[in-house]
Amino acid sequence: MLSATARQLVRWLNQLGKISDDEGALTRTFLSPAMRRANGCVAQWMHDAGLDVREDAVGNLIGRLEPTPRAGGQGAVPRTLLLGSHLDTVRNAGRFDGALGVLLPIAALHELQVRGVSLPFAVEVLGFSEEEGVRFSSAYLGSKGYSGQLRASDLTLKDSSGFTVREALVPRETRGFRLPEAAHRSSDLVGYVEVHIEQGPVLEQENLAVGVVSGISGQTRGRFRFTGKAGHAGTTPMSMRRDALAGAAELVLFIEQRALAQPPLVATVGTISARPGAPNVIPAEASISLDLRHPQNADRARALQEIVAAARSLARRRGLRVKWQLTQENDAVACSPTLVDLLDSSVRAVQSRSATLVSGAGHDAVIMSAVTPVAMLFVRCREGLSHHPDEYASPADITVALQVMVDFIERLARTPDLVHTARSIRRAKSRRPHKLPSHE
Amino acid sequence: MLSATARQLVRWLNQLGKISDDEGALTRTFLSPAMRRANGCVAQWMHDAGLDVREDAVGNLIGRLEPTPRAGGQGAVPRTLLLGSHLDTVRNAGRFDGALGVLLPIAALHELQVRGVSLPFAVEVLGFSEEEGVRFSSAYLGSKGYSGQLRASDLTLKDSSGFTVREALVPRETRGFRLPEAAHRSSDLVGYVEVHIEQGPVLEQENLAVGVVSGISGQTRGRFRFTGKAGHAGTTPMSMRRDALAGAAELVLFIEQRALAQPPLVATVGTISARPGAPNVIPAEASISLDLRHPQNADRARALQEIVAAARSLARRRGLRVKWQLTQENDAVACSPTLVDLLDSSVRAVQSRSATLVSGAGHDAVIMSAVTPVAMLFVRCREGLSHHPDEYASPADITVALQVMVDFIERLARTPDLVHTARSIRRAKSRRPHKLPSHE
Repeated sequence: MLSATARQLVRWLNQLGKISDDEGALTRTFLSPAMRRANGCVAQWMHDAGLDVREDAVGNLIGRLEPTPRAGGQGAVPRTLLLGSHLDTVRNAGRFDGALGVLLPIAALHELQVRGVSLPFAVEVLGFSEEEGVRFSSAYLGSKGYSGQLRASDLTLKDSSGFTVREALVPRETRGFRLPEAAHRSSDLVGYVEVHIEQGPVLEQENLAVGVVSGISGQTRGRFRFTGKAGHAGTTPMSMRRDALAGAAELVLFIEQRALAQPPLVATVGTISARPGAPNVIPAEASISLDLRHPQNADRARALQEIVAAARSLARRRGLRVKWQLTQENDAVACSPTLVDLLDSSVRAVQSRSATLVSGAGHDAVIMSAVTPVAMLFVRCREGLSHHPDEYASPADITVALQVMVDFIERLARTPDLVHTARSIRRAKSRRPHKLPSHE
Repeated sequence: MLSATARQLVRWLNQLGKISDDEGALTRTFLSPAMRRANGCVAQWMHDAGLDVREDAVGNLIGRLEPTPRAGGQGAVPRTLLLGSHLDTVRNAGRFDGALGVLLPIAALHELQVRGVSLPFAVEVLGFSEEEGVRFSSAYLGSKGYSGQLRASDLTLKDSSGFTVREALVPRETRGFRLPEAAHRSSDLVGYVEVHIEQGPVLEQENLAVGVVSGISGQTRGRFRFTGKAGHAGTTPMSMRRDALAGAAELVLFIEQRALAQPPLVATVGTISARPGAPNVIPAEASISLDLRHPQNADRARALQEIVAAARSLARRRGLRVKWQLTQENDAVACSPTLVDLLDSSVRAVQSRSATLVSGAGHDAVIMSAVTPVAMLFVRCREGLSHHPDEYASPADITVALQVMVDFIERLARTPDLVHTARSIRRAKSRRPHKLPSHE
């Protein structure tokens, strides 16, 4: 019976992957015509799975399943489990990023109902309207709206046509638009669980269909700029040079070695430039970007400190000046140990062996972590590829993920403490509020 | 008396530095209106110094001083000493590069005549019409034309307006244009001596006004392209990366260390690029340029071999592919030991101490070396700067250079073997013909 549901899920993914704003490529951006068609289509599938469907003020699609009558018992107030991800995409996207985390829970709830499993809590399946940050160069507008974290400044962001977020939203509410409040009080929530393709190579390397995310890395982004002295490539002896690019190259290697020495630290220099940029002129200026991520804030901070110190030291030795410019800094997010343990048990039950991963990329779970405990299940994707039409997760792996989600919800249903009382959740939330990590 | 001549020379340099195709910046390109005005102006100064002036088919300005009657003696045929440089400039140029090497000999000949020195040889002062390669992206059109080395393929080069060299030249010769023959048979020449600003920092470092050039470096230019694998900066563990930019950075440092270890080898990476070039994407491709120069061809070849081997070895270790693409290779040019010795004696006589330098940049002397022995005198320039409006050689240093040139010509006049017989010159030419090194 589950295999029929899994096949249905794969068909849904394929169908949804055809709903695009662009011809011949998958692109769905915030509030675009294709997003409206996608919401309509997914709403129908939610409805068919027995969910009550609504759309909120920022275009999030929400399918709610009330607790099974009688399952609540003892007069306790049932809480709501949130399952979801986003329905928007990057330009020329793959069909799994986001969509899998919305459609898989619908299939799981369908399966549970077919099996006649009683749920002592409500479930909301969330299809967030915006996570990729494509239209307004700002990510997470959907989950921020759902969780009451949208700010007035978000409404004034402009897209490439000059439309603001507010102007894009207003037609939906003829009487104007007010910042939405959180859909739920935190105390009414069990937590938020997001299924997502890994977007990295670890599960493929480990030969596992799925893995449990322990936390989402914090991130530091910035730029080093070295300044030396231009000179003629033919007439300036090596000993008299102040070559800015040679200094930058030395730092690129230091950054690489520093990160290699301390997994799971990752450090990336993705851009580099040299000026004036002629083959026969010694570079007077060289800039590199730095993207530094680690699941522990303290480890990331220490690595950054050492990298900046190394840059200064090599610049001094080479007669260069160096400037470090911080452009973005986001704290790490820890997943809920309780939810991670439950999810881990489900993974072991289904694929016999589990793996714990750090998410190096941001997800809607980052935003949701400000209002409720979060957990994530990663699904293996081919060659770690995402944000690309060749992005692929196999039907077999998707089936495993579906089995895990069904098992997880069943386990949760057998854990009345979690779904009816606030204690463990309050404990997990004690470290918040924190700064919001970025997407990407 | 010499100081009056030197002051005149500095005035000429300032006047010529104002003759430009661009307003507010010094730019004179091949056969441009400003070049015609410059030739007219310099022709007048040549005439005033007692030279017979003509312009050849490619716009070179030539001022000839015949041997002093009676000075030849013994019925031997007097030869011609060539002194010169170029009158064109780069865009937004300085006023010394090229011009100094044309105007200084005029001043020197004036001084010698004022002193009543007899010259047993003819002298031609050459103002080449094209050396910088600005208009047709090909350098040395002037000296190639003068020395009979212009080829039919040079005539089809196009400027940015689509005019060919032939079309630019034809108005000068109403009956069409034929490739010019060499202005002289090699056996009729004493040699070619070029005065030029150093365009490098060595004389400034050595605290010397002038130095003697022993040879002009050979040059290899090309590009290394590394190919690895793109990946997400957050989700790809360091140990699973194939980062093309990290490989390129390692090679940049190897190149620097290799050149440092073997002066006067110079090696420059002036351009670098990484693709896709986003801060959060591991570079799949990285390219660097290489400019490698050494006065000995064998040393340059060995360095290149080691650099290519290092690139291949590090690429293998990092799981990258690397491609080396040679774009230009030019042999070194040795200056005539006889002329270098004479020039060195003159330098010692004038500033008590001499220095021998390698020219890392190409000059008209490179082209002239194919038809006659060459030598060069370098003049200190502030901070090694050239090709820039702030390019500067002091009146004091220019005076020293002028004294050296006057002394050199007098010494040559006392060396009848050199100026009347072919033997030593034939010996010096035995290594030619060779490939022509490039400008820059």
